[in-house]
Amino acid sequence: MIPHLLSASDLDRDTATLVLDTAQGMASAMTGREVRKLPTLRGRTVVNLFFEDSTRTRVSFEAAAKRLSADVVTFSAKGSSVSKGESLKDTALTLQAMGADAVVVRHSASGAPHRLTGWLNGSVINAGDGTHEHPTQALLDAYTIRQRMGRFDGLRVTIVGDVLHSRVARSNVALLTTFGARVTLVAPPTLLPVGVSAWPVEVSYDLDSVLPDTDVVMMLRVQRERMGDSFFPSAREYSRRYGLDVTRMGRLPEESIVMHPGPMIRGMEIAADVADSERSVIVDQVTNGVLVRMAVLYLMLSGEKGTML
Amino acid sequence: MIPHLLSASDLDRDTATLVLDTAQGMASAMTGREVRKLPTLRGRTVVNLFFEDSTRTRVSFEAAAKRLSADVVTFSAKGSSVSKGESLKDTALTLQAMGADAVVVRHSASGAPHRLTGWLNGSVINAGDGTHEHPTQALLDAYTIRQRMGRFDGLRVTIVGDVLHSRVARSNVALLTTFGARVTLVAPPTLLPVGVSAWPVEVSYDLDSVLPDTDVVMMLRVQRERMGDSFFPSAREYSRRYGLDVTRMGRLPEESIVMHPGPMIRGMEIAADVADSERSVIVDQVTNGVLVRMAVLYLMLSGEKGTML
Amino acid sequence: MIPHLLSASDLDRDTATLVLDTAQGMASAMTGREVRKLPTLRGRTVVNLFFEDSTRTRVSFEAAAKRLSADVVTFSAKGSSVSKGESLKDTALTLQAMGADAVVVRHSASGAPHRLTGWLNGSVINAGDGTHEHPTQALLDAYTIRQRMGRFDGLRVTIVGDVLHSRVARSNVALLTTFGARVTLVAPPTLLPVGVSAWPVEVSYDLDSVLPDTDVVMMLRVQRERMGDSFFPSAREYSRRYGLDVTRMGRLPEESIVMHPGPMIRGMEIAADVADSERSVIVDQVTNGVLVRMAVLYLMLSGEKGTML
Repeated sequence: MIPHLLSASDLDRDTATLVLDTAQGMASAMTGREVRKLPTLRGRTVVNLFFEDSTRTRVSFEAAAKRLSADVVTFSAKGSSVSKGESLKDTALTLQAMGADAVVVRHSASGAPHRLTGWLNGSVINAGDGTHEHPTQALLDAYTIRQRMGRFDGLRVTIVGDVLHSRVARSNVALLTTFGARVTLVAPPTLLPVGVSAWPVEVSYDLDSVLPDTDVVMMLRVQRERMGDSFFPSAREYSRRYGLDVTRMGRLPEESIVMHPGPMIRGMEIAADVADSERSVIVDQVTNGVLVRMAVLYLMLSGEKGTML
Repeated sequence: MIPHLLSASDLDRDTATLVLDTAQGMASAMTGREVRKLPTLRGRTVVNLFFEDSTRTRVSFEAAAKRLSADVVTFSAKGSSVSKGESLKDTALTLQAMGADAVVVRHSASGAPHRLTGWLNGSVINAGDGTHEHPTQALLDAYTIRQRMGRFDGLRVTIVGDVLHSRVARSNVALLTTFGARVTLVAPPTLLPVGVSAWPVEVSYDLDSVLPDTDVVMMLRVQRERMGDSFFPSAREYSRRYGLDVTRMGRLPEESIVMHPGPMIRGMEIAADVADSERSVIVDQVTNGVLVRMAVLYLMLSGEKGTML
Repeated sequence: MIPHLLSASDLDRDTATLVLDTAQGMASAMTGREVRKLPTLRGRTVVNLFFEDSTRTRVSFEAAAKRLSADVVTFSAKGSSVSKGESLKDTALTLQAMGADAVVVRHSASGAPHRLTGWLNGSVINAGDGTHEHPTQALLDAYTIRQRMGRFDGLRVTIVGDVLHSRVARSNVALLTTFGARVTLVAPPTLLPVGVSAWPVEVSYDLDSVLPDTDVVMMLRVQRERMGDSFFPSAREYSRRYGLDVTRMGRLPEESIVMHPGPMIRGMEIAADVADSERSVIVDQVTNGVLVRMAVLYLMLSGEKGTML
């Protein structure tokens, strides 16, 4: 129904479920084949337009596109015409004219992917814009939760850390509540957005009290470069109050799981033992990231334009 | 007739026409197919050897090669063995030994592509060398002009801006005059080459007086980094005298077109309204760039070596 | 028999011979075909994980993988999550989760590839780790020697230069002695490892006296950045005593050959006339590098896991 993927809040429950089901279909299709590659998007061109570095996300999209036999072209802003003064509009018109069928964009400015849609006929996928959204991260997280927990309704998800600067948190709140989960945010007061009271979530400053009622705990990345900021307690204090170590993990119910979008700093927001424990689904998240991105590209680029997603 | 593409001035009218016709054939071949990819160059390796950054040109060649099913390998000089003291000759011998069928080279030194031909059996395509030439740019410009104007003979083309440092201008003057067009250069006296009086062109310092007799106006890129140079008037003065705004565009005849090789700085050498106007073929130039590069690669790499181009 | 390629000293004579024979088979297979590309590894993903820049080695592996129809993804450490504090382990788990079938790794720390094998199900190929090993370089050197000399038994190989810091030297000593060649090292005393007396080699400080009894002379790369070190004589002194010029080359027996792993600094460790002479097989080494890497990838990734190599 929508030709682009800009924000998790644009996705209604049916569309989001379609993405997850398609990703699951991708997993089956790949498993059954000797050659783990589908011919679906042969001749289509996917452009990775990265104004910020993110090797993980770029490589995940690249792997997804190549497994569907699409051609992938990387257009990184460093040393490109962007640094020679070209506007975002002209970069978009250029990619359009070169025949980009989909543009995967990461940009430091919230809203940049949305602006791109005004200039491109092809599909735009937001791979992270400023502190705004990162919708494929939310979709891969939802896929992983469904895979392990089997349901969303009434599921208690706790998101812990720097919510203020986290596009991952924003996208997850939107998608998880659409799916019927109950979300709690745990963060120092300085790292919560001003308008958080209007979000459909509960807020707590005390991780220990929330964990016993949590099915899924999602640790956010600590961005080292912010550690000096006045927003932040000291690294040690942060880790003590908001980090997940083995003792604290012991407060979680039996069947609960631990998530992290990566890259993580072991010993800071998450202890090594926790990251490697049986509760951790962090590695599954990466695998599912490729599947979900295959699904999104497939739904956007195969068949009739604008009718699937 | 020639195995390499080093300079637009090497192309006689028949060869250049063959390239444009082949590019047109590529456009038809791609339009008719569900899978927009031709198998022609499967198993051939195209190396992008970029000693200077140029994301646009690199991506255009990469898209062209991939649409012909060639493998593309990017060899950028940054952090490569070049920075460890390797000579251009040894880089060439290395690419040759790795089985490069064509090497697309951009280099800050005029003549570098020519020197490469001494060490490579594969084809060399000049993608911009110093202030010398950029022949595929001239070919895509010619393709765009033919597409819109239907002819070259007697066509009045005006090239505006920093001719002194522009390989685009050099290549266009060579090719357009080969095709029978009449070229006028408009630039501040400091930005014209010393030997321009020997070129087969007219020269003017007054853009307004030339425009009414112009069919095609080609704006050159202003390189911001030169703005401080003594060559250059101030940005504001440059823009006032040599920039193309809507008022000035009004002096052009009805059917004339506006071109720019990109990346452009809107508001400097060209106003945003002009770039987006119906006269502007700037976006077509980008699309045609891929087609022309497909044609050049095809003519060089398919069939008998050295017999087509 | 081994699923990874970490060190030339892991290779017994039969396994190493299998790699060289397979590489020779690749050469034949490519020569006979109009399309120089084998479908063998379609759907497999090869990741180039480069923590140190090395365009040559990366491009060689990339060309090898693409000629076998594998998908290649480059994950360079610059600007990646590694620089955001991610551990090597988490990078490995991420690549694993994304479905990497083989990881080609270059790292400044000796032993890093070995540590990767603990976290990856896929194959690990060491493309250079610290001052430790570079096994595919030794294999391509052996391939080149066999191609030109027809045998290893009793062959006299002289390795000249900075042995102390050279993974190329370590890997070659291991593989060549496995093959039955007799290796002599020639270097300034400061550029020999402490434990060299335990190596199965002879050592000399006098290049001129060794050359008349040499079948293969292998010049090591001088790393300019070390030239200021106390290890090193001055550039001029180094070149005079350990460089290979035409006069010195005259001391070699008739059928002997000259090798260099590249990139070389002409005029420093090797004279331009020597590099371009008929004795030089430096360009063959590059060509054979692609073949040997195709063979290694083929033996690791096709057919039953862990049974071929």
